[in-house]
Amino acid sequence: MKPLSPTDQLFLWLEKRQQPMHVGGLQLFSFPEGAPDDYVAQLAEQLRRHTQVTTPFDRRLDTRLAQPVWVHDEHLDLEHHFRFEALPTPGRIRELLTFVSAEHSHLMDRERPLWEFHLIEGLGERQFAVYIKVHHALVDGISAMRMIQQMLTTNPAERDMPPIWDLPVRAGRDDGDDGPSLWRSVGHLLGESGKQLGTVPTVARELLRTINDARKDPAYDSIFHAPRSILNQKITGSRRFAAQSYSLDRIKAVCHAFHTTVNDVVTAMCATALRTYLMNQDALPAKPLIAMVPVSLRKDDSSEGNQVGVILANLHTDEPDAAVRLTRIHQGIQTAKDRYATMSSEEIINYTALTLAPAAFHLLTGMAPKWQTYNVVISNVPGPKETCYWNGARLEGMYPVSIAMDRLALNMTLTSYNGQVEFGLVGCRRTLPSLQRMLDYLEDGLAELERAAGL
Amino acid sequence: MKPLSPTDQLFLWLEKRQQPMHVGGLQLFSFPEGAPDDYVAQLAEQLRRHTQVTTPFDRRLDTRLAQPVWVHDEHLDLEHHFRFEALPTPGRIRELLTFVSAEHSHLMDRERPLWEFHLIEGLGERQFAVYIKVHHALVDGISAMRMIQQMLTTNPAERDMPPIWDLPVRAGRDDGDDGPSLWRSVGHLLGESGKQLGTVPTVARELLRTINDARKDPAYDSIFHAPRSILNQKITGSRRFAAQSYSLDRIKAVCHAFHTTVNDVVTAMCATALRTYLMNQDALPAKPLIAMVPVSLRKDDSSEGNQVGVILANLHTDEPDAAVRLTRIHQGIQTAKDRYATMSSEEIINYTALTLAPAAFHLLTGMAPKWQTYNVVISNVPGPKETCYWNGARLEGMYPVSIAMDRLALNMTLTSYNGQVEFGLVGCRRTLPSLQRMLDYLEDGLAELERAAGL
Repeated sequence: MKPLSPTDQLFLWLEKRQQPMHVGGLQLFSFPEGAPDDYVAQLAEQLRRHTQVTTPFDRRLDTRLAQPVWVHDEHLDLEHHFRFEALPTPGRIRELLTFVSAEHSHLMDRERPLWEFHLIEGLGERQFAVYIKVHHALVDGISAMRMIQQMLTTNPAERDMPPIWDLPVRAGRDDGDDGPSLWRSVGHLLGESGKQLGTVPTVARELLRTINDARKDPAYDSIFHAPRSILNQKITGSRRFAAQSYSLDRIKAVCHAFHTTVNDVVTAMCATALRTYLMNQDALPAKPLIAMVPVSLRKDDSSEGNQVGVILANLHTDEPDAAVRLTRIHQGIQTAKDRYATMSSEEIINYTALTLAPAAFHLLTGMAPKWQTYNVVISNVPGPKETCYWNGARLEGMYPVSIAMDRLALNMTLTSYNGQVEFGLVGCRRTLPSLQRMLDYLEDGLAELERAAGL
Repeated sequence: MKPLSPTDQLFLWLEKRQQPMHVGGLQLFSFPEGAPDDYVAQLAEQLRRHTQVTTPFDRRLDTRLAQPVWVHDEHLDLEHHFRFEALPTPGRIRELLTFVSAEHSHLMDRERPLWEFHLIEGLGERQFAVYIKVHHALVDGISAMRMIQQMLTTNPAERDMPPIWDLPVRAGRDDGDDGPSLWRSVGHLLGESGKQLGTVPTVARELLRTINDARKDPAYDSIFHAPRSILNQKITGSRRFAAQSYSLDRIKAVCHAFHTTVNDVVTAMCATALRTYLMNQDALPAKPLIAMVPVSLRKDDSSEGNQVGVILANLHTDEPDAAVRLTRIHQGIQTAKDRYATMSSEEIINYTALTLAPAAFHLLTGMAPKWQTYNVVISNVPGPKETCYWNGARLEGMYPVSIAMDRLALNMTLTSYNGQVEFGLVGCRRTLPSLQRMLDYLEDGLAELERAAGL
């Protein structure tokens, strides 16, 4: 038995029918050489034999003395969690994304450990996919990514590898509070009141007071400049997931030409994609969109957990010239990073929490505040650099599947893997129609910069 | 715009995370002769072209003046409702039932019309399946069955047949209150208070008063004799669906031998299945289980709607001898029917409502009353007698997928089709482990009676 941390409770509290709070990961594999045609069915059989389930995947929610706790599930039904499924004809990536969109829209059963592992056959030429879904209260996005990496190997000859739910428990992994979490910053801001989610009105009042104080403070004024946009509406329960890989070499060539970082270029690609998408919807705000970009601020290797800060990146979506846009985005991010370098840990926590506060206030109260601190989340999660394998099957791509929320209808999360930048876009399907077109607009954004650089 | 009837509101009100209130139907088809291997994919393409959606499938929920209403969905996204999916290897009935179990566990998106149509390929030898899921607030089980029949034809040559969401609207179909509904009986019992679901405490108080009065009345005493059993626990959100066809000829042969009706024999099969299942769980109550069996009471053809009554069938699960059990079940049902014959319409409504009242009270208040009027629902929905086709594909079987509820963890619904009796069992997967074994126990129940009859 383990009490839920305030942050974990927050994710349960925020969850509602039209706002599931689980994160996911999609991995694309190709068959090992010489594997039989029914390779995936054989793999399913093999996985079904892993009836041992290690922490945290054995945990289900319970209540003790009116407090939510994690308990070991005595009656874990692996068939509920491990699902062998198939794509319909013609089994393209399109059918896979449709499948993940539907699955990512479904709430999980709170009577059971909050995770699902979907093994998906019927994909193209001797490929298959794995879609892992975990509630954010159980595992945060970064930890989930770490566990997925732990499941993989760089050795193509290795076999008998366990699935994610049967990994050996590592020291420290059991502690739900060791991972980096932006949400925890909100908890810090609130101090003690954040530990009592039962008293939401108190927490919300505290948030409101802090926000109002900050808005009067010139030091924090720049936080409250995001325009209103269609990205910042109430959402429905249906998701659209879109994912694609982009060549890291191409992105790096643009970096060199413009003397920017990889992160600047992918942020500029997102800016172009958003600009084109919103213009096509006749909904581009006159003021530039602001992206919330979580960044790691770790200065040394001494601490196990990462320190996470938030950059409010001006995306300059009002600027028609792609090269100018990239340069300005680069300057903005650089300025924010420089500012962080001069800040103490406490100042960083305060700044981060203030940035998140309006969204937290809205999520907790359902009231729509007039101030929007950012329009979209663009998150970059580190991934493996080398070619990875799972039981001999080569990992071709891995895509994050994150959370859309009320007033934050779109989440753009990316990771890097083996010379690729892997984008996963999650959005409310009704608020943001034809979201999948953004994949082409991301490509257009990169091509535009290549042309501007004369590449 | 059309206000929701009190009954429709009831289904929305009763729905919660672990208790979805949708009904479903599973149809099994074989390919038309000479159809190509990618027949189902071609069918999917054809169905996607039916972008016109007729009433009630175009309706979504909205609120006007604080009252729930149905409105026409201006932005209906067919891709959300029509889903082309596939079974994993080896594509047996077992994989199909696993698929339907998972899909039937998912809540639907309330921002959209509350229905889904799943076209499923990858089933055995040139077969495919259709799983239709509709919220009970939109369409009740009998109406859904009627619409499915309207989608079919007895002519194997007919092509270009519309799917269920594009059927021509028939006069009368628009009126949500014309179908038979047991739930409406509860509304009748409550009179005006039943029309104001906003005041649930009032409704519940009224129910409690009525139940307590009835328990003192010797005429209604027999209603409150069901034992407590594991079937009558709180449920979780995961469902297990199990389905199988049984030969009507075999069942009729038993009928003739014992001078009973088909319905008596299928009820006796259910009794045996429940007895065996509960004995294996070491959970058979000493007192016999009571089944709630909805029956049609229409005496003439003058009225469009069916009058529905409820028989509380004693299943004699304490009786070890199968033949004795069948005879007693037959006598019990006959006595109940005879009693109905002497009752006025008003008396029938009162009796039915009283039978349902304890379950309704529990569902509305979450409080577990001490009185259980029945342990399980066994429902027989009329189906087509002749071989049916859909676009040339022969219908091989059709199975109802109904609702499990708190304290009614198992629903046994059956229908008849083309010389078969088609059972669909829906249960809470955690409360009732290995529910699928009941299919074998139903068969055992039939075989036992055949032996007893010397067949």
